[in-house]
Amino acid sequence: MHDYPVSTTFRVEYGDTDGQGRVFFANYFLFFDRGRFAYWERLGLSAEDIRRIEHDCVVVEAHCTYRAPAAFYDLVSVHTRVANLGRSSFRVEYVAVNDSTNTPMAEGYTVLVHVDVARNTSVPLPVELKARIQAFEGHRLND
Amino acid sequence: MHDYPVSTTFRVEYGDTDGQGRVFFANYFLFFDRGRFAYWERLGLSAEDIRRIEHDCVVVEAHCTYRAPAAFYDLVSVHTRVANLGRSSFRVEYVAVNDSTNTPMAEGYTVLVHVDVARNTSVPLPVELKARIQAFEGHRLND
Amino acid sequence: MHDYPVSTTFRVEYGDTDGQGRVFFANYFLFFDRGRFAYWERLGLSAEDIRRIEHDCVVVEAHCTYRAPAAFYDLVSVHTRVANLGRSSFRVEYVAVNDSTNTPMAEGYTVLVHVDVARNTSVPLPVELKARIQAFEGHRLND
Amino acid sequence: MHDYPVSTTFRVEYGDTDGQGRVFFANYFLFFDRGRFAYWERLGLSAEDIRRIEHDCVVVEAHCTYRAPAAFYDLVSVHTRVANLGRSSFRVEYVAVNDSTNTPMAEGYTVLVHVDVARNTSVPLPVELKARIQAFEGHRLND
Repeated sequence: MHDYPVSTTFRVEYGDTDGQGRVFFANYFLFFDRGRFAYWERLGLSAEDIRRIEHDCVVVEAHCTYRAPAAFYDLVSVHTRVANLGRSSFRVEYVAVNDSTNTPMAEGYTVLVHVDVARNTSVPLPVELKARIQAFEGHRLND
Repeated sequence: MHDYPVSTTFRVEYGDTDGQGRVFFANYFLFFDRGRFAYWERLGLSAEDIRRIEHDCVVVEAHCTYRAPAAFYDLVSVHTRVANLGRSSFRVEYVAVNDSTNTPMAEGYTVLVHVDVARNTSVPLPVELKARIQAFEGHRLND
Repeated sequence: MHDYPVSTTFRVEYGDTDGQGRVFFANYFLFFDRGRFAYWERLGLSAEDIRRIEHDCVVVEAHCTYRAPAAFYDLVSVHTRVANLGRSSFRVEYVAVNDSTNTPMAEGYTVLVHVDVARNTSVPLPVELKARIQAFEGHRLND
Repeated sequence: MHDYPVSTTFRVEYGDTDGQGRVFFANYFLFFDRGRFAYWERLGLSAEDIRRIEHDCVVVEAHCTYRAPAAFYDLVSVHTRVANLGRSSFRVEYVAVNDSTNTPMAEGYTVLVHVDVARNTSVPLPVELKARIQAFEGHRLND
């Protein structure tokens, strides 16, 4: 996971699971969201910064490939990186690992676009945020 | 169910269930919400009316007593009534029945308060809405 | 939508929305699930058949491209087709339309694999189900 | 909060919120669940113990009184105690506090019954668990 510089770990809760006794497939995206929040914190963003960037970005694409399930109270880690950084959009990639069974669970990504919510148009990412991501990801971002 | 004048029926979906193979307890409140939306429609409210009243009300109390479970794709009916109607608040009561097993699943209520969202204070219910509820419920409301 | 032979229509509920006032991106997958359940019903499957096939299939891939938002109580239609049908897996494609704004909301797919849950291996799809899907989709499946 | 001996703290996530920009009322019960899981951990239960007790208990009653909202990325603490301990059932009480606004958010409870899932009847709570709860709560349980 050395290419995914930020990690966060949590337990699967009852509300995450479904009638098959495993995490419901759509809830992996909530886990990925946790990965992105951890990433923002690692960049040093304040709670207020995180509220603003998450409010001002919309998800335009989401994808997940499922490898193995996780059951209630399994320990799950999500490892996160920013893989693409455009003018107004960026792609965040996630790998989820079931630490209780030591098994890769899933990998996926979301593409987010920075928007002017009122005018419903894309607008450039904040310069300061972009600089922080570039400094943090370094060469990984350009490979 | 003759005391609950409005009913709505739907199937349990996979996302509603949890690791015990039954509807997750907190999701009963989503089912109750469907009962209230059906109630508004039965009163003749437009989609725009429903958006406004639901946006302008906050839940201040919620309760559920659980009788029997429901599994994926069971048919569930929610029967709804308004049981109390105050100046700015009202209490909506719900009975959920598992039609697939012909078993009462749960009963519960939510108390909602009409608020001025910007000022965060309770304000009187719209006169027109109150009149419609009173006309529809009739003597049931005053028993 | 003539290439998506099954449609189902419903209202956005409060629990579907998020702090941006629109349907939370992960919940589009719950909407897609409704499309697949409607598809099974259209094929003539019984509730028991639907319980079995949904229990015996796991999602191995999920994707969504987001076009436009939907707000509370908007009317949403999901149009569904089976686009690929393999030995043990199949790919279901969905288009969601916001009927209240007459705008395409999203398109996406899920790939499901029929498994022997106990042994955790893929097994061939039921012959009868496969035949029904092929008869129903006809040439669309082979284009 | 000195009467609620176990606390856990977390951030509000986007999926927790609804179209009013605050935590959706039904999701408070997911927060309460986190409180109970933290309680089990504090008692020294292993992950396997927690999986077993949560699987073998069903919620028979749930209640919440809402005091103040919480928005995305607010810091929330849930404080938890066991308030009643019967032969096969127990009542867990929760207080949620919005630490970001320093405001009590809600208080509530869930009543759980230990069941024989296969036979669908209540059965006595495990002696060992009961003893641990009694030792931990001490006089609070008998007030």
